[in-house]
Amino acid sequence: MTYRVGIIGGTGYTGSELSRLLVRHPDVELAALTSRSNAGVKVSKVNTFLKGYTDIEFTEKISDTKDLDFVMVATPRGVAMDEVPALMEQGIKCVDLSGDYRLKDPAEYAKWYGKEHTDTEHLKDAVFGLPELFRDKIKGADLVANPGCYATSAILAIAPLMKSGLVYPDVFVDGKSGTSGAGMKPSERLHHPTCGETVTPYSIATHRHQPEIDMVVDMFAGGHTDVMFVPHLIPIVRGIISSCYFRLKESATQEQVDEIYEKQYGAERFVDYVPEPSIRAVVGSNHAQVGSKVYGDRAVSFGVLDNLTKGAAGQAVQNMNLMLGLDEAAGLDFPGLGV
Amino acid sequence: MTYRVGIIGGTGYTGSELSRLLVRHPDVELAALTSRSNAGVKVSKVNTFLKGYTDIEFTEKISDTKDLDFVMVATPRGVAMDEVPALMEQGIKCVDLSGDYRLKDPAEYAKWYGKEHTDTEHLKDAVFGLPELFRDKIKGADLVANPGCYATSAILAIAPLMKSGLVYPDVFVDGKSGTSGAGMKPSERLHHPTCGETVTPYSIATHRHQPEIDMVVDMFAGGHTDVMFVPHLIPIVRGIISSCYFRLKESATQEQVDEIYEKQYGAERFVDYVPEPSIRAVVGSNHAQVGSKVYGDRAVSFGVLDNLTKGAAGQAVQNMNLMLGLDEAAGLDFPGLGV
Amino acid sequence: MTYRVGIIGGTGYTGSELSRLLVRHPDVELAALTSRSNAGVKVSKVNTFLKGYTDIEFTEKISDTKDLDFVMVATPRGVAMDEVPALMEQGIKCVDLSGDYRLKDPAEYAKWYGKEHTDTEHLKDAVFGLPELFRDKIKGADLVANPGCYATSAILAIAPLMKSGLVYPDVFVDGKSGTSGAGMKPSERLHHPTCGETVTPYSIATHRHQPEIDMVVDMFAGGHTDVMFVPHLIPIVRGIISSCYFRLKESATQEQVDEIYEKQYGAERFVDYVPEPSIRAVVGSNHAQVGSKVYGDRAVSFGVLDNLTKGAAGQAVQNMNLMLGLDEAAGLDFPGLGV
Amino acid sequence: MTYRVGIIGGTGYTGSELSRLLVRHPDVELAALTSRSNAGVKVSKVNTFLKGYTDIEFTEKISDTKDLDFVMVATPRGVAMDEVPALMEQGIKCVDLSGDYRLKDPAEYAKWYGKEHTDTEHLKDAVFGLPELFRDKIKGADLVANPGCYATSAILAIAPLMKSGLVYPDVFVDGKSGTSGAGMKPSERLHHPTCGETVTPYSIATHRHQPEIDMVVDMFAGGHTDVMFVPHLIPIVRGIISSCYFRLKESATQEQVDEIYEKQYGAERFVDYVPEPSIRAVVGSNHAQVGSKVYGDRAVSFGVLDNLTKGAAGQAVQNMNLMLGLDEAAGLDFPGLGV
Repeated sequence: MTYRVGIIGGTGYTGSELSRLLVRHPDVELAALTSRSNAGVKVSKVNTFLKGYTDIEFTEKISDTKDLDFVMVATPRGVAMDEVPALMEQGIKCVDLSGDYRLKDPAEYAKWYGKEHTDTEHLKDAVFGLPELFRDKIKGADLVANPGCYATSAILAIAPLMKSGLVYPDVFVDGKSGTSGAGMKPSERLHHPTCGETVTPYSIATHRHQPEIDMVVDMFAGGHTDVMFVPHLIPIVRGIISSCYFRLKESATQEQVDEIYEKQYGAERFVDYVPEPSIRAVVGSNHAQVGSKVYGDRAVSFGVLDNLTKGAAGQAVQNMNLMLGLDEAAGLDFPGLGV
Repeated sequence: MTYRVGIIGGTGYTGSELSRLLVRHPDVELAALTSRSNAGVKVSKVNTFLKGYTDIEFTEKISDTKDLDFVMVATPRGVAMDEVPALMEQGIKCVDLSGDYRLKDPAEYAKWYGKEHTDTEHLKDAVFGLPELFRDKIKGADLVANPGCYATSAILAIAPLMKSGLVYPDVFVDGKSGTSGAGMKPSERLHHPTCGETVTPYSIATHRHQPEIDMVVDMFAGGHTDVMFVPHLIPIVRGIISSCYFRLKESATQEQVDEIYEKQYGAERFVDYVPEPSIRAVVGSNHAQVGSKVYGDRAVSFGVLDNLTKGAAGQAVQNMNLMLGLDEAAGLDFPGLGV
Repeated sequence: MTYRVGIIGGTGYTGSELSRLLVRHPDVELAALTSRSNAGVKVSKVNTFLKGYTDIEFTEKISDTKDLDFVMVATPRGVAMDEVPALMEQGIKCVDLSGDYRLKDPAEYAKWYGKEHTDTEHLKDAVFGLPELFRDKIKGADLVANPGCYATSAILAIAPLMKSGLVYPDVFVDGKSGTSGAGMKPSERLHHPTCGETVTPYSIATHRHQPEIDMVVDMFAGGHTDVMFVPHLIPIVRGIISSCYFRLKESATQEQVDEIYEKQYGAERFVDYVPEPSIRAVVGSNHAQVGSKVYGDRAVSFGVLDNLTKGAAGQAVQNMNLMLGLDEAAGLDFPGLGV
Repeated sequence: MTYRVGIIGGTGYTGSELSRLLVRHPDVELAALTSRSNAGVKVSKVNTFLKGYTDIEFTEKISDTKDLDFVMVATPRGVAMDEVPALMEQGIKCVDLSGDYRLKDPAEYAKWYGKEHTDTEHLKDAVFGLPELFRDKIKGADLVANPGCYATSAILAIAPLMKSGLVYPDVFVDGKSGTSGAGMKPSERLHHPTCGETVTPYSIATHRHQPEIDMVVDMFAGGHTDVMFVPHLIPIVRGIISSCYFRLKESATQEQVDEIYEKQYGAERFVDYVPEPSIRAVVGSNHAQVGSKVYGDRAVSFGVLDNLTKGAAGQAVQNMNLMLGLDEAAGLDFPGLGV
């Protein structure tokens, strides 16, 4: 069976990356992309890299396309919750990539996103879409909240160690991201002369991925943790590395820590625990790499991924595969660029 | 049928990129990679991006592996001609990516490569592997000389216009390449502090892709052309754009020039003629983009590609597909990163 | 004597760079910077790199500051011609960095700048401010039109060879510029994810530096030349290299060409003729480097500079020094970063 | 009086940067640069950015030049301690930039530098050359150990807060450095294709700046602190930002923390406490910027500088100025590039 999949918000970076992945997905037909400004225009005319891969045109609304089996919501935050209820009503499963359904507590949403949540009904049932940690729940979900790019990288690096009980409920996350994570809208911060040869910390203690990391890390710690997340903009286009700093309850050996991660990720298709995690090894692919180093009674762990793929569109496809009962790696079964 | 393919020179950038492509090729089993220094080591341990995609180990010599159907020669130049004769003798078809079989005239080889050619026998029959221009010959070949990365980008941009007779037999090629084109050996020129925030012209009038461009452009001009090729190193990792400058015999319109290129490439799977060719549109893929602009009685055309893919390993796979009678796009049927 | 100098347009990149140079100029007091949006704010609060170097505040209009001896006009193009007449009337000498006074022919201005010139009176007397070629005229001028960054790099590389008569009146200019040359206004083209890992040709045959290069090259050729200028955006912040391609009338030797350039620039303080011109050698300084290479009956020459310094603010200070009878190198007497 | 200054190790990045600064120092004559491989060659031929600024030639040994008043030792580590004794004996004051005289405890030196210290006599009297913290001692010193680039950035950010008693004796330092900090020797790690579009943690728990940071932070904490320093390579040429993570003993306000830093650095010429520290603001100059942010009972502080200037050669000149009784800012009195 071929599933007809639509994307709401087809022109942003996430929408582009979803297109890139879905046009080569063996079980999927990319059936719709919405774009208000480009409605009626061929997708491959706007995104020339899709020439030869799709002949469809942008439509204005997702409801312009009939018989969709699945929808990816790649709108700006605060807009997805206007789209999801209608899709749920029609029985169309969704992955929301926007952030609207990540925080379980509507009060937290209001605090961090600056507006009231208007779809608390579906928020209750939405599943946090990090397959390596919540696979079973995702399989049964109708609505999955795709995690943030920073959040995915940090949580993959933190969760196993926090669960192990070896560390204090306490972690600093020094996030370092390429610029595509901030979206396609030009701004002073992403203007090349501003960011091209420097490193810039930003949104300290105000970044929306902070409460998401808090929420999931608390689950694995089994109680409240102190997380401080400080994102930094790095002059590369794709890629994130989150360096996560821990205090060990008592000195642990590198071997103990290695064992914890290997146990967690040894059987995973898309998360590898390696001695030297590398953005180049995963860029362009749905793979993530995790690494760690113990130093006395301190430790650091690293979570590395491509912010647009495992950090967004790739993980969304992985979630979709699980939700539709497909092979989890369908359409994602290719390595990173390497060089 | 699944073809067993080996790579001689498996650890360089070209060897890595060949691995990346062949592990997902539907009709191929990656059966051998040679590496003197890594013999006996798992390939995925050296190149962690291949973890989960291949379990084989590096071997010392290609003859260590039996029953190969096809071999990619990705050695340094001057070494391939030592390997090819034995393969030909065993009836194993090859693509040579090293440069040893590109120049038809052994005297030219000696002049530009600084040593005598020792396999002139097979040099005679080797076919220049640019499928969009020499497809039929490639289909029947046992040995294909894969073009250089700069040469591919320049020739794709120059050949149609030269053939048209609209321009003087005269072209300047301003090549601009990412750093991976120069290979994995550290050197002062590729040291990040030296090249990371600058643009450096190099090998002016001495670059080995000069005679290759000369040779093929002459074919399309139907006589001697004056080509001056000046390569520049650009601080990006992957990607080439060659800007090619022409004098028109008489003023031509943009429409005339567009028509020439569209006629040449309109039906091609991997070469697109577009208004604004873009490295980001093709990076990571086997696609190339060509564009042009007329200004009075002058014109510029651009050839854009990923130097490791359409400029090397991807084109080698495309040639292999033709030589084996497979779908030309097998294993290459995916778009560039886009962002 | 200390000259009181003001800058109209103090917040753009050119205004910042002028500030950087003028605060350390031994004969100058930086007395005024205008900025509509920042009027009343300390300059060093907006540009923290000036903390400790100036205590002045932005003012709204240049006339808010009395007793100025000299004014730098660093406004967007099309605005300078509204400011200059009043300054000339008050007998205040100016350098205009905006482009409004570069093209001698008002019809050319209208064609390339898209509006009528409204100050043709002063346009007549404005001197094109390239000191190495027009030093004497600059010394006597009240109004100097500071050349464009690309134009400076191209003209320095082209003029000596064109004057020599050794080449046909015919040149292709392949310009490659860092992103700061395009100014501080965020745009899609300068958005880091768009331009950070690629090379983009732009404004082909429509760039405003084209007629400026034409105008000056014609002077040195002693007649009409065919110049085609194609700018490319490169992912570095500061720096330009223009690669200029010539056809020689008859084969010339490298020595002949070297002699031409050495004769032209041997005694210059800010233009060096070197075997391997390098952006890193000049970045941050008012120095330019020129190089060349002969190949048969073709040649290439390179003009290299920092687009904000020798390509804009530094050259403006150099012009000011000449106009005020100061040491030409005053305030500019320091080398490029080197690394 | 003009002081005759020599540099041992004149061809490395630190030697180049020292040259850049000393040729424009008002009270200094750059009298000697040593280089075994370039002995007899004009300095400005190797480093073309110095053309017009110095006419001297490289010499083999520092003793080849007579009547030196001061020497900068910019050799690789482990070599300086062979040079310093002779200089001390002749009464020539020195700044050592190599690391040999930074760690007071010879056992620590042996542990981190992998060899025995052979000049413990002068090690005893060497002063750690961070002027903002140890100015008075530096003024009276004959031998100053110039701090490491990472160490300077981290210590400037940590020391005031540690001294305040507001935080636990506990800090994680996430260092992020441009590539020039690693020196001019090509290596796989600094090969552009390896490092150009990624971020790489390296030397975790083994970097030689770790014990240096430990030593100085302990002084300000008044006892043992737990410091974990994790350096990351960033694809920029110049610049460091160290992000330092603290746990507050009890919640402090941003105002309290601001006051601590302002008190420490308010009167300093070269260290500014600013809301948004920026590499671009300081690059090319001897200025550093420090910033901080409180988040609940956690805090982060940032130390930002140009690794070659305030992180090496600039600070060495600042130290020299103090040691010779000159104006501390002599030859360093210019702002960063800004853009």
